[in-house]
Amino acid sequence: MNTTIETLPTPCLVLDEAKFQRNVTNMRTRIAQRGGTLRVHVKTNKSIDATRRILDDGAPHRIMVSTLEEARYFAAHGLGDITYGVGIVDQKLEEVARLIGAGVDLKVVLDSAHMARKLGQRGRELGVTFKAYAEIDTDGHRAGLQPQDAQLIEIGRILAGDRGSQLAGVITHAGGSYECRSISEIRAMAEQERSRLVLAAESLRAAGIECPETSLGSTPTATFGESLAGITEVRAGVYVFQDLVMAGLEVCRIEDIALSVLATVIGHQTTRNGIITDGGWMALSRDRGTAQQAVDQGYGLVCDVDGRACGDLIVTSANQEHGIVAERQGRAVDFARFPLGSQLRVLPNHACATAAQHDRYHVVEGREVKAVWPRSNYW
Amino acid sequence: MNTTIETLPTPCLVLDEAKFQRNVTNMRTRIAQRGGTLRVHVKTNKSIDATRRILDDGAPHRIMVSTLEEARYFAAHGLGDITYGVGIVDQKLEEVARLIGAGVDLKVVLDSAHMARKLGQRGRELGVTFKAYAEIDTDGHRAGLQPQDAQLIEIGRILAGDRGSQLAGVITHAGGSYECRSISEIRAMAEQERSRLVLAAESLRAAGIECPETSLGSTPTATFGESLAGITEVRAGVYVFQDLVMAGLEVCRIEDIALSVLATVIGHQTTRNGIITDGGWMALSRDRGTAQQAVDQGYGLVCDVDGRACGDLIVTSANQEHGIVAERQGRAVDFARFPLGSQLRVLPNHACATAAQHDRYHVVEGREVKAVWPRSNYW
Repeated sequence: MNTTIETLPTPCLVLDEAKFQRNVTNMRTRIAQRGGTLRVHVKTNKSIDATRRILDDGAPHRIMVSTLEEARYFAAHGLGDITYGVGIVDQKLEEVARLIGAGVDLKVVLDSAHMARKLGQRGRELGVTFKAYAEIDTDGHRAGLQPQDAQLIEIGRILAGDRGSQLAGVITHAGGSYECRSISEIRAMAEQERSRLVLAAESLRAAGIECPETSLGSTPTATFGESLAGITEVRAGVYVFQDLVMAGLEVCRIEDIALSVLATVIGHQTTRNGIITDGGWMALSRDRGTAQQAVDQGYGLVCDVDGRACGDLIVTSANQEHGIVAERQGRAVDFARFPLGSQLRVLPNHACATAAQHDRYHVVEGREVKAVWPRSNYW
Repeated sequence: MNTTIETLPTPCLVLDEAKFQRNVTNMRTRIAQRGGTLRVHVKTNKSIDATRRILDDGAPHRIMVSTLEEARYFAAHGLGDITYGVGIVDQKLEEVARLIGAGVDLKVVLDSAHMARKLGQRGRELGVTFKAYAEIDTDGHRAGLQPQDAQLIEIGRILAGDRGSQLAGVITHAGGSYECRSISEIRAMAEQERSRLVLAAESLRAAGIECPETSLGSTPTATFGESLAGITEVRAGVYVFQDLVMAGLEVCRIEDIALSVLATVIGHQTTRNGIITDGGWMALSRDRGTAQQAVDQGYGLVCDVDGRACGDLIVTSANQEHGIVAERQGRAVDFARFPLGSQLRVLPNHACATAAQHDRYHVVEGREVKAVWPRSNYW
């Protein structure tokens, strides 16, 4: 390709290849230092091109998906070791069985004896053995059983006792790490995530149930956790792009954020000190993940076309296809710096949400567009 | 098709055809009663199938789009009278000229003498006459010139005086109506939108500049406005689906909302009184448009599979592919009513944002899926 960023129709998604690659390598190194094994969560990137770069960097060929569409897409591109991370229900088992039948080592997640029973029964009917993780709640954040809940042993026995099912192990996600206020809080959360998951595995083993895998992770805990004792794999996804929420957590620096939305200045509201761009919530997403952090970045931090932050300029409000850019403290905007037709790049609050508004990445080195990577969206 | 809602993979978008049709007819009637002419804003539906139903109901064959992709898509399906509503910039003029060359009566919007000049120059270079609306700010909400800004006359003269450009008229959108607190406030906003736009048209005419069109609209002002004196067309889009924000403004009733996200119960958090579903922010969007209204609907109001609201059950929080459903006041949830694997329908805060997370509508009559209508997303 011989395109430069200036010729791209806006709004569109821009990925800084060097930053992406550095983020990928940093996390792989960080986990390897602790003797851990990575399972990349591909819900952030939803792109085989991006995921191939992560695997080429030395990550194991195992992925986590958040939808069965991701499972189909990545399996069709040759990735065979997949965990589907959203609690399984009966209606989805036929499709899971079809993928297993097609050779995919697809594992599911559940947190009730009811679904464990259903899994074995449907596995026998469909002629497959479903492998399931029991989900453990290590931070009171979302789904899962408490590590010493009696139902966990029950689930282990049900899964192990049916030829239609098998216990893959225990799994957890410390999503609560996103609400931490300091690195030491994240570090403590990582240790809580680890120790409670290991406790769950040990409860099963003490009851004579085999529990091969212990899978945990979130980008913050994967970054700052110290010990991985007793853990067989660490999952993370957003680290490959990083974002303003991660920067607010000190997981990365602003200059590590590889993803941005390219937008064009379409108007000046001089009396209201606002620059109007064609990057609205359709392009940025409605995510306001930094609203509760120490620094509220509005709908995103504004950079120049080369990706350098423009001081305190943020997207203060967003309509469907209009973004309003202003100084954080309502100070006067230097309109001469942003003439009509000039381009901006907006760093996202939450990379998963912003990327999901687009069907492709424009991969850049400096201002040169080196590749276009399609995304696989929807369900 | 012979499918029922129970067999749809979740999450997915469901459109109640009868409600949609009633919303379409109500607005057409409401505008006709005032002697107005409708231009449907298709950014909400982005579907030729939905838009055909609106036009078949008797709406004029003229549409407003929010992206050039919508312009291409609807033009390819035979709609030739299109206004592109986001302030035009130089980079997009070649594509606009290409569409005009292909026979589309495509009009653009601008609010500066700079862009007016550029339009004529580029029109001559590209061999077309660009028709442009001058955007008027009638509510201090976003873009546009004040009705009596001297620059408006300047823009009119520039556009009229160049064979590469032409003044289509004046245009405004009272987006401020979304923040009104009562019907009488919306009514006053509608009159302000009308009178200020007419004032702008009259300023141009008093200066000897022809101003054929006066285009205004938003769903709230189109619904409650009384006079359309001096107005040639009314634009609205979200009314076809309606949503919780519109219900909060009393523009519609909850039972008029035609759009919902179908989700499946995937977990029970009995100790935290939460139902976990597979309808997260990826399916619902991150829109929290009711947060500032009298009734905060969280990420959406929960209905049963037949679309009847389940009391005070709302989506209280959302992760990418997980929704947490709970009682508004934190009261005990009746888990027996929502067993694992059962389906819910979530009414959206903002139909434009929620629909945009999906690539298709499942059009239902009762529980029967009668059709699938694809959407045209992205830019």
